[in-house]
Amino acid sequence: MYNLILLHHRQSTNSLHQNLSFILNKPFDVKFEQKPKPTLSSPHDVLVAVNYTGICGSDVHYWVEGRIGDFIVENPMVLGHESSGTVTQVGDAVKSVKVGDRVALEPGTPCRRCTPCLSGHYNLCDDMRFAATPPYDGTLTGFWSSPEDFCYKLPDHVTLQEGALVEPLAVAVHIVKQAEIKPGQTVVVMGAGPVGLLCCAVAKAYGASKIVSVDIQASRLEFAAKYAATHTFTPERVAATENAARLLKETGLVGGADAVIDASGAEPSIQTSIHVVRRGGIYVQGGMGKPDINFPIMALCTKEITCKGSFRYGSGDYKLAVEFVASGKVDVKALITGTVKFEDAEQAFKDVKEGKGIKVLIAGPNEK
Amino acid sequence: MYNLILLHHRQSTNSLHQNLSFILNKPFDVKFEQKPKPTLSSPHDVLVAVNYTGICGSDVHYWVEGRIGDFIVENPMVLGHESSGTVTQVGDAVKSVKVGDRVALEPGTPCRRCTPCLSGHYNLCDDMRFAATPPYDGTLTGFWSSPEDFCYKLPDHVTLQEGALVEPLAVAVHIVKQAEIKPGQTVVVMGAGPVGLLCCAVAKAYGASKIVSVDIQASRLEFAAKYAATHTFTPERVAATENAARLLKETGLVGGADAVIDASGAEPSIQTSIHVVRRGGIYVQGGMGKPDINFPIMALCTKEITCKGSFRYGSGDYKLAVEFVASGKVDVKALITGTVKFEDAEQAFKDVKEGKGIKVLIAGPNEK
Amino acid sequence: MYNLILLHHRQSTNSLHQNLSFILNKPFDVKFEQKPKPTLSSPHDVLVAVNYTGICGSDVHYWVEGRIGDFIVENPMVLGHESSGTVTQVGDAVKSVKVGDRVALEPGTPCRRCTPCLSGHYNLCDDMRFAATPPYDGTLTGFWSSPEDFCYKLPDHVTLQEGALVEPLAVAVHIVKQAEIKPGQTVVVMGAGPVGLLCCAVAKAYGASKIVSVDIQASRLEFAAKYAATHTFTPERVAATENAARLLKETGLVGGADAVIDASGAEPSIQTSIHVVRRGGIYVQGGMGKPDINFPIMALCTKEITCKGSFRYGSGDYKLAVEFVASGKVDVKALITGTVKFEDAEQAFKDVKEGKGIKVLIAGPNEK
Amino acid sequence: MYNLILLHHRQSTNSLHQNLSFILNKPFDVKFEQKPKPTLSSPHDVLVAVNYTGICGSDVHYWVEGRIGDFIVENPMVLGHESSGTVTQVGDAVKSVKVGDRVALEPGTPCRRCTPCLSGHYNLCDDMRFAATPPYDGTLTGFWSSPEDFCYKLPDHVTLQEGALVEPLAVAVHIVKQAEIKPGQTVVVMGAGPVGLLCCAVAKAYGASKIVSVDIQASRLEFAAKYAATHTFTPERVAATENAARLLKETGLVGGADAVIDASGAEPSIQTSIHVVRRGGIYVQGGMGKPDINFPIMALCTKEITCKGSFRYGSGDYKLAVEFVASGKVDVKALITGTVKFEDAEQAFKDVKEGKGIKVLIAGPNEK
Repeated sequence: MYNLILLHHRQSTNSLHQNLSFILNKPFDVKFEQKPKPTLSSPHDVLVAVNYTGICGSDVHYWVEGRIGDFIVENPMVLGHESSGTVTQVGDAVKSVKVGDRVALEPGTPCRRCTPCLSGHYNLCDDMRFAATPPYDGTLTGFWSSPEDFCYKLPDHVTLQEGALVEPLAVAVHIVKQAEIKPGQTVVVMGAGPVGLLCCAVAKAYGASKIVSVDIQASRLEFAAKYAATHTFTPERVAATENAARLLKETGLVGGADAVIDASGAEPSIQTSIHVVRRGGIYVQGGMGKPDINFPIMALCTKEITCKGSFRYGSGDYKLAVEFVASGKVDVKALITGTVKFEDAEQAFKDVKEGKGIKVLIAGPNEK
Repeated sequence: MYNLILLHHRQSTNSLHQNLSFILNKPFDVKFEQKPKPTLSSPHDVLVAVNYTGICGSDVHYWVEGRIGDFIVENPMVLGHESSGTVTQVGDAVKSVKVGDRVALEPGTPCRRCTPCLSGHYNLCDDMRFAATPPYDGTLTGFWSSPEDFCYKLPDHVTLQEGALVEPLAVAVHIVKQAEIKPGQTVVVMGAGPVGLLCCAVAKAYGASKIVSVDIQASRLEFAAKYAATHTFTPERVAATENAARLLKETGLVGGADAVIDASGAEPSIQTSIHVVRRGGIYVQGGMGKPDINFPIMALCTKEITCKGSFRYGSGDYKLAVEFVASGKVDVKALITGTVKFEDAEQAFKDVKEGKGIKVLIAGPNEK
Repeated sequence: MYNLILLHHRQSTNSLHQNLSFILNKPFDVKFEQKPKPTLSSPHDVLVAVNYTGICGSDVHYWVEGRIGDFIVENPMVLGHESSGTVTQVGDAVKSVKVGDRVALEPGTPCRRCTPCLSGHYNLCDDMRFAATPPYDGTLTGFWSSPEDFCYKLPDHVTLQEGALVEPLAVAVHIVKQAEIKPGQTVVVMGAGPVGLLCCAVAKAYGASKIVSVDIQASRLEFAAKYAATHTFTPERVAATENAARLLKETGLVGGADAVIDASGAEPSIQTSIHVVRRGGIYVQGGMGKPDINFPIMALCTKEITCKGSFRYGSGDYKLAVEFVASGKVDVKALITGTVKFEDAEQAFKDVKEGKGIKVLIAGPNEK
Repeated sequence: MYNLILLHHRQSTNSLHQNLSFILNKPFDVKFEQKPKPTLSSPHDVLVAVNYTGICGSDVHYWVEGRIGDFIVENPMVLGHESSGTVTQVGDAVKSVKVGDRVALEPGTPCRRCTPCLSGHYNLCDDMRFAATPPYDGTLTGFWSSPEDFCYKLPDHVTLQEGALVEPLAVAVHIVKQAEIKPGQTVVVMGAGPVGLLCCAVAKAYGASKIVSVDIQASRLEFAAKYAATHTFTPERVAATENAARLLKETGLVGGADAVIDASGAEPSIQTSIHVVRRGGIYVQGGMGKPDINFPIMALCTKEITCKGSFRYGSGDYKLAVEFVASGKVDVKALITGTVKFEDAEQAFKDVKEGKGIKVLIAGPNEK
């Protein structure tokens, strides 16, 4: 059906074509529709033509469920938030980018005025406007308006496809910062999906000397081992303490890991994690899953573990992610397993839902 | 029966009398017995005659269950670890205390050589010798040998009874340090037992501007309100989110508390806590309870909460606890609801088990 | 002469009178002049009628020298930045204050977009607009326009005179935060002028157990001892190491102070400070003085001292300062030694320059 | 003359030969002498045959001046403290090393009991026993006794020569930790001697993206550029602000460097450093020089710079240094410009004093 809608749009004028958007009506019900091209609302804003957008688990989750926790899609919403683009217009006060610059887009704009914003934690902003989080439209559209300080210029040798991967890389950067990983430390990463893999790579860039990737799929662990992990581990359907003991033994992590990152959201992984962290170590909850789980709280207490949530990304994360790509310290290209045309966005969502590939990009509607 | 045993000891020589000890054989089976008087094993050690010992929940737990988690009483063990005493002998290298000094005793001696010890976290020592934690004997005895740096001289105006309270106060100091409480912040403390009350008092000494004490017993909350809390809250048998919402509303904690401390170990309290912490706030698990509980992990993740365990006490905690007592910033005297003779130790354990009083002290066997 | 100018203004219409301002032309050359009443430039702004303004050493410095470092008064500039006021108009988006609210004014507005701003250090903003720092006008005027988040509502029991003291108190809060003072620590504060005294008071509110106030004027030390210091010290014209040794001995600071704050800017004080800090302690440069001084850098190195600058105030400082005044933890009223009419502003500057009083307030031009 | 003394020793028995030591009597007056072979004073101690010892600037300084600051050579003292060795005997409680293990020796043994020790800062120990710091003998000797936790086992592929470089590398590790360098940050290192070069290498291992090496010798900068620096800079005899401005411009450090490390001790370098650090950045004093210098304290204040001393090394530094060598992240071999026989120790000191080579090793007296 969406092909018909698309056909209709194809018949409209060229200028309208420019802002074709991929819109979720309700679970499993999407459409392509022209939206008004955004205008600059501040002299600090820029307009960006979207070139590539990666599909995130949260996009798929909205598509399938129509909600994530308390965020409910009540009105049609443009999907997508992992994007790169090209600057087409700049406000009068803009200094850091110019028309024609290729940029990675940070998709959430904070209020800049609340206590979290003023204290350097804008990811916890009281009034965040985040792409493809209801009620805000996302970036699977033709043009995107952004404050200049949330656009990050890509160096010439970084491609726009790589630029779209800066978003999940910034997620991993934030997680690894929360884990306070320092050179020489040991890290276990639960889950070898895109974010888990990027956490391994960022941990390596932070100097971790031992990086254990944990997943139940052998093929993912094979990739992880080639990509950034020094060790891999396959858990079994046994007690968390048992998996933890075997993990520590097989990987030589005497006394536990300095940090454990969960990028899976799976209850057994989280339970195992707490038994894998060393006394005084850090656990970071990066993955999203069930709201409430059975959790070994007394092990956390007696080992004096610090357990932190990691939510999106904040001050300096995008900048560092671009630097990691630019310097080659993190190879995001290896994670791109396909790029589809804008018209094929729904099929791409289906593929991601079925676990095909690692990271699939959708070209912008105006991308040739 | 234990009176008979005691009688027997009374008949023995005076010198033997000096080290009468209160010993747990197995659950609900205790005895009084003379133990060899300890000798100094290092020139840095001192010998201390124990004056007063408080009863801790963990002592009662060993008495009732014979174990706490993996710590199992396999051989008869002297109970007690919350003690004050008087120095009776000092090693050649001792400088900070002298014979006759009245001291608070820090009951755990770390190895000083492992990674946690060398990095300033001796409470996480790989090889800690902790009083009344199997297989190490406790302080419900006549004489106790300790390194001088684990004895803290009491100022003249601080009583030996107050000195016995320095231990639970140090527990509270460590918890509040973990909570990183700063002047002007808001704190919620779950549980109004001795440690919960002391956490309220220490939070106040750290400058917290709003301190909410939470308990299901009205009498405890009444005491808390007089003691150190600015607000109290009685939870009901409803969902954690519901209790949390009502707590925030009733106490005017818009947006959540900066820090929440659990000093209860109770599953519903822990669940409520996570919903009470503000975005970016801190939760500290201070109380011991069930090893595994249902836990709102996704709320922790999306609010980017830092959740920490707090285990015993470490560098500087005892010193600060003594300073709080000496300066009057924390009133520990108000918590002492009774002092019994050494011979009445078992009855005192029974009373504590039944929730009588706040903090009961047992006089040392040589105390007149 | 300025009386004549003033007379002229008195003759003008009432509405013009409203924004009478105290303006520095060049060193020792000031005038009173009506300035256009500011308008709201953003829906987040509020308009405030200025009630009271304290005189700061920097105001006097501009008046005397026409510059502070690289900040040069090239065009006539309204003086003053320590002010309280009453809200007279609010923008459409304003939520936290309403017309009639009495507020303390934070006089610097950051850009909210640079790296320091986004990382929680807006006091280091690349593009700060700070009152009475060239080329920006100050608050010795009738009306002041401010973003709502830089206005702090005063509780009913806090006076507008106290509100004007929130600014120097916020300076002291920021300094003490830089000093990382914790309960039970020892602090030495060099200089017993308004900021030095407030540092003593804030250190006390942070739980410092020993607070040594150092000054060369006996009368100031007498006041400090009554106000917030536990000890005082008068340095002599001897070597810094000698003053340091005597200070440590007389105040019982065995091994050095945990933190030393310089609120004097005087070279001998700074030198003495480094010799007074303990190994691993903190020194904070809060006072302004000569740009380059003779400094004991090797003592800093071998004692591994952390030496920090403190510049203005940042995230949370004003809020905490208001809380300290509201709770009575810091008594700012005791520092107010006089209040003069707006017309007497120049005489007040002369008095401050001559060291009369502690803190002098100038009433707003519309204050009865 | 020392050859005659040596000859004498050669004639003595084999067992005496084992502990030949290189001893400083007074400035420029050294001797070789047999010292009693140390015995194990604790079950935690090990005996190590010294294999290689590097010469440090401080060794040369004692040789030339007979003192460093307050540390004065009053009695003959064995020199040397940068050593590797082979374990020849272990105490009963030793677990981590065994006879035959090749180790890097951490040359300072703390008391483990003072406040700095218990709080994780043993480098600031009140009662440190540090090799070749009066009155303690150094490691230019046959056998060295050490607690096991101050011996670090070298992996098989790390040579004993590299092992001797672990000491200066640990110095650099501690400095870089003090500088809090994080991935993507920019660093300037003043001085391209051994420690300065190692700071560049460690900064790189910590993920610094731009590392500027500064020295007045072109040959050192050439080496630095090949070794670990991304940029080099040669200061001129102009004002510190002028050198700073040119450095920032030539290296593209817009707004200043995140961190500046001084590994030179030179007054002009220190002055320039403060003008090179960005607002809110960190400066670390790693190099030793004149005790008092002219210092731009107001620039530190208004830029809110954190300036730290770095003294020796502490918790975890040696372990990380060994890990850096073992993993190849830091190439210490490139710095070794020569190895001399024990008998040639004095000539080696002369060469170092004249600036010949980067790092010269002296073989142990029992080394073939």
